Amino acid sequence: MIYPSFDTLVEKVRDGAARRKVVAVVAAEDDHTLEAVAQARRDGILDACLIGRADKIRTLLAGLGEAAEDFRIVDAEDPVAAAKRAAELVRERTVDFVMKGKVQTADLLRAMLSSESGMRTGRLLSHFALVQIPNYHKLIGLTDVAINIAPDLAQKKEIVENAVATMRAIGFEPPKVALLSSAETVNPKMPETAEAAALTELNRGGWLPGCHVDGPISYDLAISAESARIKGYDSPLPGDVDLLVVPHISVGNILLKALRYSAGAASAGIVVGGRVPIVLTSRAVEAQDKFLPLVIAASVSGD
Amino acid sequence: MIYPSFDTLVEKVRDGAARRKVVAVVAAEDDHTLEAVAQARRDGILDACLIGRADKIRTLLAGLGEAAEDFRIVDAEDPVAAAKRAAELVRERTVDFVMKGKVQTADLLRAMLSSESGMRTGRLLSHFALVQIPNYHKLIGLTDVAINIAPDLAQKKEIVENAVATMRAIGFEPPKVALLSSAETVNPKMPETAEAAALTELNRGGWLPGCHVDGPISYDLAISAESARIKGYDSPLPGDVDLLVVPHISVGNILLKALRYSAGAASAGIVVGGRVPIVLTSRAVEAQDKFLPLVIAASVSGD
Repeated sequence: MIYPSFDTLVEKVRDGAARRKVVAVVAAEDDHTLEAVAQARRDGILDACLIGRADKIRTLLAGLGEAAEDFRIVDAEDPVAAAKRAAELVRERTVDFVMKGKVQTADLLRAMLSSESGMRTGRLLSHFALVQIPNYHKLIGLTDVAINIAPDLAQKKEIVENAVATMRAIGFEPPKVALLSSAETVNPKMPETAEAAALTELNRGGWLPGCHVDGPISYDLAISAESARIKGYDSPLPGDVDLLVVPHISVGNILLKALRYSAGAASAGIVVGGRVPIVLTSRAVEAQDKFLPLVIAASVSGD
Repeated sequence: MIYPSFDTLVEKVRDGAARRKVVAVVAAEDDHTLEAVAQARRDGILDACLIGRADKIRTLLAGLGEAAEDFRIVDAEDPVAAAKRAAELVRERTVDFVMKGKVQTADLLRAMLSSESGMRTGRLLSHFALVQIPNYHKLIGLTDVAINIAPDLAQKKEIVENAVATMRAIGFEPPKVALLSSAETVNPKMPETAEAAALTELNRGGWLPGCHVDGPISYDLAISAESARIKGYDSPLPGDVDLLVVPHISVGNILLKALRYSAGAASAGIVVGGRVPIVLTSRAVEAQDKFLPLVIAASVSGD
């Protein structure tokens, strides 16, 4: 399936799911978070379980013109207690994914990764973003721009596995994966090129069936069929890539910001690799920036 | 001085120089190279010394409708001999910069860096690009996206020195320099952040007077005043940066390609750090892509 834009993904999640997904919002007493969650509920995308100081949450909902009875509200005295409660709900399988509210990321992740939580899968947690680039014909995945700083080969393998599983859950099938580097050849002075070649070779051996993996490959070859034609690069990937895998976090962060601030792209990311996705947007961002990650998380979590 | 676009740089080089600069083209028997050089000559940007097989060069010039007497032609039997001859011309100071024609990059650089050449300065050679991003108000420098793979702190210092000297020669005065990373804080797990902080500190101590250096800094803070305002980042740099310094080549290569292929940017680069600049464009590119680096090299080389 191809998503030309985030709008088509929103439609698919709203109209396509067998049932509405439920998000557990940790320390929900936060204006922008509640606003995004309320909009997603009104749009038919999800139901929400709001965890935190119930009185405060009710007051904020009233201020937003929302009816408290449209939400499940779970009282928790502080952010750490709220995170613990969310971990229990994940274990009980009464929620489909988790969103960070007014809680420190470290406190949230500690609760999620505790042995009492139902979150642990033994897999690496990694960051997965979807990006809408104005001059590209479909949404494109990007990983890992936010969690793993300088992953080694084994970690890169898990990052790709996490992202491919996520893309399949969203409906990209089969995903075409580019392992980005600055060139197409292995350069012994650039370990990332050797790692990319190793992952491509692994895939030829059947690592991720039904999935095209190519690399090392440069950004222009991944994104532009014309560029690949000029350079005589033969692959189904150029101009039709679904997932860009960056060699390390600084490449990913700077690439994503260049796309957002210089190419007019929109983007939204989630944390994957746990049993359910986690929405970890910054507390500083507006409600609008918290909405799209909710849509992605809802589209990823299984029926 | 601000250059809103490459056109304004072309005008400045054409109208502002005390005398026309002279390029030495190494193995000039190449169609696209001759086309670019001939256009730059006709535009009043430079004069050219074409080194290579004189008969072949004359035939190609005739095919382009150019008069052979408009150029100095220096006969050389093969590309290696042409490169040696260019190195001699640099030593004699009869040419202002060098351009690669139909010669291997390694052969050209070997001749340039030989002890008989006048090219060596004891400095690191590095790559410097100018980029025209449609939604940014001026040309912006970018270094090093093509030569030094993973520079250490001492090499980064030289890369910045080379680029700042180049920008000043072009007319950016004083340049505002961003040492790009994925965040604004030093992270012990990311050596590039510590290196950026060290260079910023060096500059506070007077390293490059009349030059603002800031880092580590993220791409959005460097390029967007609005983003800096939201994050409370106080510096003269956000939204008005002149030079982006990337932590390693893969960041630079992928950033530049994202700007070109996804943000509609144009770019052109030269090699700096030698006594004269070197234009090293790929043999595959069209004449148009060989023209702008000639303009940049002509603007950089001293009167």
